[in-house]
Amino acid sequence: MKYDLLIHNGVVVTMNPGRDILTNGIIGVRGGKIEWVEVESSTSEKPLPEASEVIDADGGIIMPGLVNTHSHLPMTLFRGLADDLPLMEWLNDHIFPAEAQHINPDSVFWGALLGCAEMLLSGTTTCCDGYFHEDKVAEAVDRIGMRAVLAQGVIDFPAPGVLDPRENVEFARGYTERWQAASPLISPSIFCHSPYTCSADTLKRAKAAANEKGLLFQIHIAETQSEIDQIRSERNVSPVKYLDGLGLLDERTLLVHAVWVDEEDIAIIAESKANISHNAGSNMKLAAGIAPVPEFLLSGCTVGIGTDGCASNNHLDLFQEMDLVAKLHKANTLDPTVLNAPSVLEMATRGGAKAVGLQQLVGCLEIGKEADIIILYSHRPHLIPMYNPVSHLVYTATGADVRDVVVSGNIVVKNRKILTIDLDDVMAEVQKIGQRIIGK
Amino acid sequence: MKYDLLIHNGVVVTMNPGRDILTNGIIGVRGGKIEWVEVESSTSEKPLPEASEVIDADGGIIMPGLVNTHSHLPMTLFRGLADDLPLMEWLNDHIFPAEAQHINPDSVFWGALLGCAEMLLSGTTTCCDGYFHEDKVAEAVDRIGMRAVLAQGVIDFPAPGVLDPRENVEFARGYTERWQAASPLISPSIFCHSPYTCSADTLKRAKAAANEKGLLFQIHIAETQSEIDQIRSERNVSPVKYLDGLGLLDERTLLVHAVWVDEEDIAIIAESKANISHNAGSNMKLAAGIAPVPEFLLSGCTVGIGTDGCASNNHLDLFQEMDLVAKLHKANTLDPTVLNAPSVLEMATRGGAKAVGLQQLVGCLEIGKEADIIILYSHRPHLIPMYNPVSHLVYTATGADVRDVVVSGNIVVKNRKILTIDLDDVMAEVQKIGQRIIGK
Repeated sequence: MKYDLLIHNGVVVTMNPGRDILTNGIIGVRGGKIEWVEVESSTSEKPLPEASEVIDADGGIIMPGLVNTHSHLPMTLFRGLADDLPLMEWLNDHIFPAEAQHINPDSVFWGALLGCAEMLLSGTTTCCDGYFHEDKVAEAVDRIGMRAVLAQGVIDFPAPGVLDPRENVEFARGYTERWQAASPLISPSIFCHSPYTCSADTLKRAKAAANEKGLLFQIHIAETQSEIDQIRSERNVSPVKYLDGLGLLDERTLLVHAVWVDEEDIAIIAESKANISHNAGSNMKLAAGIAPVPEFLLSGCTVGIGTDGCASNNHLDLFQEMDLVAKLHKANTLDPTVLNAPSVLEMATRGGAKAVGLQQLVGCLEIGKEADIIILYSHRPHLIPMYNPVSHLVYTATGADVRDVVVSGNIVVKNRKILTIDLDDVMAEVQKIGQRIIGK
Repeated sequence: MKYDLLIHNGVVVTMNPGRDILTNGIIGVRGGKIEWVEVESSTSEKPLPEASEVIDADGGIIMPGLVNTHSHLPMTLFRGLADDLPLMEWLNDHIFPAEAQHINPDSVFWGALLGCAEMLLSGTTTCCDGYFHEDKVAEAVDRIGMRAVLAQGVIDFPAPGVLDPRENVEFARGYTERWQAASPLISPSIFCHSPYTCSADTLKRAKAAANEKGLLFQIHIAETQSEIDQIRSERNVSPVKYLDGLGLLDERTLLVHAVWVDEEDIAIIAESKANISHNAGSNMKLAAGIAPVPEFLLSGCTVGIGTDGCASNNHLDLFQEMDLVAKLHKANTLDPTVLNAPSVLEMATRGGAKAVGLQQLVGCLEIGKEADIIILYSHRPHLIPMYNPVSHLVYTATGADVRDVVVSGNIVVKNRKILTIDLDDVMAEVQKIGQRIIGK
């Protein structure tokens, strides 16, 4: 009955169905899963159960690892390359040319590995990603030992690794087959870029390929006003209605952005049980707009938080993103009660897990769930006093307050050191790629 | 000719008049001031000049310490006590009662010291503060060795330390006399709470008392829509016009918030050369609104960034605040080019220094300025590659990336340890006060 891992002496923010917060909690892990969650006995008569490894949280917060519902991991390579530009100039004059010239299996692997390191070090244990050469992203995720839903990108143009767009859906299907059972931490997925870069036929075939194996289908949708104008002029309906008409909306679909949606669109999304990834920082930085998240939540939609690729954010820290989400919608509605701290923490944990189809595995700390757990420092000046741990998590802590990270029972970060890779090596490799990108 | 301190082997973001960025810069400090700024020789034939102390920045960014133009330092005591509430409920049911019961000279000292520690550890070397018992805030600032403009609060109600409001301006005048020459790092100031809590007579007398000694006069103004309604109904003009009519607007006045201002107000502020403190995070969290910062800058107003008290933010990290400011106004205007990274960094350094009247001393790294310098880590996954240091400073770095902090030539933070106080003691004292606040 010995545990593999015990975590104790901290405030456990469980995010379980009762949203219990255990002032002095203890968690027992065996076989990668949570087997025991209790309030720790305060008497020495009841010693800790036996365990191969014990983590003393030293009074800090113990909580489920965060779920980032939208990323393009290899785009760490392009962070800060171009900012503060109109969207089309940013894409056409900077990002697309850099991708065309510098995205290859090797750069995708190193860029993704760096992104995973940043995520783990800021408390994200699961991400939902989409890019090209996604096999190499999967190799990086597998190497570092984080959990992820990883999608091969589909677009009706020549793309890195898929030069003939007629093969894009078949290529994605092949990718999902290669990764379907390759790693217990990786769930393959298919990501259609958008309704304006994929034909109706491509969209339907991609969704069908995802459906065959019960995989998540992802798509950028209703990100900008100009997208709405384009789809309306071509299809005479909103992008959401267009996807709905194609039969693409169901509980295994993740709609990324969903900024420009009207009441009818929201009702369609809620009815279909399609999920939403809210990317506040990226939408703000690119001046795309502000998604109606309070309305999504009122309508019963499942909403997770995403950082987007870090060329448009420019970081992957979900703690900062929680603060941003909580504040943005208050300013936008002039109502200080919307998106309160508990509801935002929900989006970054349980909500995100449900949005990417992993709610059976992660998103809260309860018996039977995967042991994806993070521990925050307590003795830091900005975290004292702590009247309300949920307030601190949303409004005060950043990813830099994460001390330890456990994924599926394995300690991957300890005292802010990543144990599964040589981070210096990864940074050196990416530095070299970066110098090529700016032509040095 | 020996320097007291040399800082080298980093990217120097000078923020000097030419906004020079030195890829491999070196700074020489003597007598608390910057005496030398150059590009470091790459040959070993030209060794470093002699210095009592040398800081190797290890390839990181070397830059001026940030200037926080609005804080209420002791409010660290109330962080997370109440969030997500309507403004008046938050103030009347939570913050004001907590202040009435728990604000005293002792709690102000410890709360302020904790706030200073958080500021220094996140790269802020100068803050502009206003509260009650400000003598104790000044003692804390003096103890830790940061730079500050510190204002005694003035309000026409009984307040902590000033039970008879008829004495409020005289008390503030006495405070400024006590601190006028007490510490080279502290500039005393007077802070009238607002046009709706101070009479016209109080406002004029307080401004006159500040003017006598050439001190900064500060006031919360045009924060909420309801303030506008109230002042308009009582005075038939906007709050800005009201202050202008009282003769309160000049280059030694700091207008805090300035959210609800119209074109005419902006023209008045620009014409008067009064300064603005923009508190994006607080205005968002309290759902006060969004200040028209792009218009302020176009009109030539001086704008600095403030965090506000950390009960309404809930942190004092200006790096996170820069990211927020840059993104907020893009989302609000749907223009991704407004408040670009250089302009936001300007607000947090030179602009802030000018806003609080310290532009002769701080805000950039050039010969003759005070040696208020911070150094960021370079070898962190989210900071690699670094195509553009200014982009990283605004959009990617957080205060936790600050490694060393120098104020007036003194090293106050080294490898993230504060050298001038025992931080554990301070946290223990604040923890005790916090337990009293929640009645434990």
